[in-house]
Amino acid sequence: MADTSKAVLLICDGMGDRPCPELGGKTPLEAARTPHMDKAAAMGECGILDVVRPGIRVGSDTGHLSILGYDAYAVYPGRGPFEALGIGLDVQRGDVAFRCNFSTVDDHLVVLDRRAGRITEGTEDLAQAIDGMQIEDVTVLFKESVAHRAALVLRGPGLGAGVSDTDPHHEGEKVWEAHSLDPADEIGVKTARILNAFVRKSYEALKAHPVNRKRTAQGLHPANIVLPRGVGMAPNLEDFGKLHGLKGVCIVEVGLIKGIGKYVGMDVIDVAGSTGGLDSDVMAIGRAVTDALKDYNFILCNVKGPDIAGHDGSARAKVEIIEKIDAMVGFLMENIGPETYLVITADHSTPVSVKDHSGDPVPIVFCGPGVRTDDCIAFGERSAARGGLHRIRGVDIISILTNLLGVQEKFGA
Amino acid sequence: MADTSKAVLLICDGMGDRPCPELGGKTPLEAARTPHMDKAAAMGECGILDVVRPGIRVGSDTGHLSILGYDAYAVYPGRGPFEALGIGLDVQRGDVAFRCNFSTVDDHLVVLDRRAGRITEGTEDLAQAIDGMQIEDVTVLFKESVAHRAALVLRGPGLGAGVSDTDPHHEGEKVWEAHSLDPADEIGVKTARILNAFVRKSYEALKAHPVNRKRTAQGLHPANIVLPRGVGMAPNLEDFGKLHGLKGVCIVEVGLIKGIGKYVGMDVIDVAGSTGGLDSDVMAIGRAVTDALKDYNFILCNVKGPDIAGHDGSARAKVEIIEKIDAMVGFLMENIGPETYLVITADHSTPVSVKDHSGDPVPIVFCGPGVRTDDCIAFGERSAARGGLHRIRGVDIISILTNLLGVQEKFGA
Repeated sequence: MADTSKAVLLICDGMGDRPCPELGGKTPLEAARTPHMDKAAAMGECGILDVVRPGIRVGSDTGHLSILGYDAYAVYPGRGPFEALGIGLDVQRGDVAFRCNFSTVDDHLVVLDRRAGRITEGTEDLAQAIDGMQIEDVTVLFKESVAHRAALVLRGPGLGAGVSDTDPHHEGEKVWEAHSLDPADEIGVKTARILNAFVRKSYEALKAHPVNRKRTAQGLHPANIVLPRGVGMAPNLEDFGKLHGLKGVCIVEVGLIKGIGKYVGMDVIDVAGSTGGLDSDVMAIGRAVTDALKDYNFILCNVKGPDIAGHDGSARAKVEIIEKIDAMVGFLMENIGPETYLVITADHSTPVSVKDHSGDPVPIVFCGPGVRTDDCIAFGERSAARGGLHRIRGVDIISILTNLLGVQEKFGA
Repeated sequence: MADTSKAVLLICDGMGDRPCPELGGKTPLEAARTPHMDKAAAMGECGILDVVRPGIRVGSDTGHLSILGYDAYAVYPGRGPFEALGIGLDVQRGDVAFRCNFSTVDDHLVVLDRRAGRITEGTEDLAQAIDGMQIEDVTVLFKESVAHRAALVLRGPGLGAGVSDTDPHHEGEKVWEAHSLDPADEIGVKTARILNAFVRKSYEALKAHPVNRKRTAQGLHPANIVLPRGVGMAPNLEDFGKLHGLKGVCIVEVGLIKGIGKYVGMDVIDVAGSTGGLDSDVMAIGRAVTDALKDYNFILCNVKGPDIAGHDGSARAKVEIIEKIDAMVGFLMENIGPETYLVITADHSTPVSVKDHSGDPVPIVFCGPGVRTDDCIAFGERSAARGGLHRIRGVDIISILTNLLGVQEKFGA
């Protein structure tokens, strides 16, 4: 690659927070000792970011779609396709995907347990009995997720998302027959027919499966059927590289985000020691980033830890993982070179008081040549709010970066 | 109700203003002594609000629709339905509504006076002669408003807004025949037919009405016909409570806003002593708000006075009513409890120098648990502009509140 400008976009997953009484009214980021992020704030331009819109609680999927420059409200197809991507299924444009449960039914297909006794073992074997099925001209891709969860992809001509659920959502009810939401819609009619056939075939493949025979012998509910729901059609997203004129790579800790990256045509680099947990080797991720700058001009890097600490409700753990990331930021600032832009932000807030994603904005800083520095000398939710960027949105990040990188085409003459 | 988080959204109608020479270059809000709003600013997070978009002059209807989370540009159907709501007509989804004038015509239906001598008395009696008419399968709802103004609602199957006006807008012209904007549109054709029949029937009902015989004897123009214009179809707005997961009530001083509240499914509480004028018992409104917190988790409260003072062009009166509201804010801050959010803002500016609504942004402050406090210590147009919220829009208010209240569904996974 030519030695032009490059950019590293570091997403500290769920880092945004609210003032915490246990931290003397500071947020974890404000309370953490972060000399390198503070230096970035002092050298760069700060602001706050609404990943989608003010106050909106976003997921990791909708958040990263926005950050990569896609209008999440316009393109988000429901959870099916992104759940499937998240667990590593090869979802392609035009595929129809579902979230699924392994469930327990009786001989009349009445649901006895929607979660098959919250099965934890053997689901990989069960999934293998299903994955690769052929129904008419449609190929089934199927993979287990955590516990009783799984994802299903239907690939073939003439499929769509206009079908109803098969999961009755209540025990004691018979498995629902999927139907087309519009009886005159041939695509919906075909998809419903394939889906109903899939559900029956899953029962046939699983009812006498050795894993289930063992479970029944142990007095456990067998995982003898798969019930799909949350249908979505994999959206026709433009290729990230073509859209923005960037050669991009994902170095991220979350399967779902790897899936999104691959889906929009980015490369993905896995890092040894990157666990996605609080014990992750964050510095190894930093080294992978500096290595990747040899081959790419845009690196999306996600460190998952702050989100984990937020979900756990632990302000102390969140402070610690932020300090660990800060050390990695110091390494990046020393090693990416003065011509490379560094952007630090988060994909959403995960306040320790909420233990879940919230719609509070997150801080953001842009560092690099030509950036209009402001008076911010500390990187925190409230200090960044006084920065020169004011309040921007997720989809703005890539536009601001491609402008700075000089790769953006002019809109107009 | 369970003791979860609640919110009070206080709209100081038309409070935003511009620097006034007669106040030494301060705005009325800046000039007023407002220790309690200033305390709210110090405890909370401030910003400025574009109720619809920067610079856009909004009405009370479009302003409050936005503040309640509806996209005013997408849903606003023209003034007919909201004029009708504002004077207390029972407008329902699918109704077609018009603004009307009582006018004076000769025997050939040539308009002599579009405003019937600016009639002020007897319009209630005239309206009663029209309200309740049946035309084919359509029911007529009709009510007088101020002076020569009135509103008309047509309720029945197969009606639409695709019809032309009947009011020629110039004297000396014959009353126009309404027609369908699309001759092939059966709904427009029927609506035009009903509308023309209504205009003729209004003439028949009014021409010899005792009120008009008296006016003619006095040498006044009789109000002998009704001319509808400004057609709009009552929009299919989602129920406020379902949309946002809130149990909401309106405690507001303006009929139009009560109408909007009812229309989106909110309850309405009337307050004795609340006049909608500068003499209103604002503290009684405050007491009604604290009482209502027992039964609701979202209260939309509107105090009309600042808008009146703005329309009157009186900076001094505006300062006084703002100080009166400030005392009520003090009462609220003492009585709503520490878990209840308080938001103070306006639905638009009504600068005393303009004597009408303007498109200048208004200040806003959010107070309550977990809010990211900023450096603001005074509540004013220019001090709030330095706050942590920066610049948000009307539709953002409810998203930010439902995020803080923990009742918002996540967008994505």
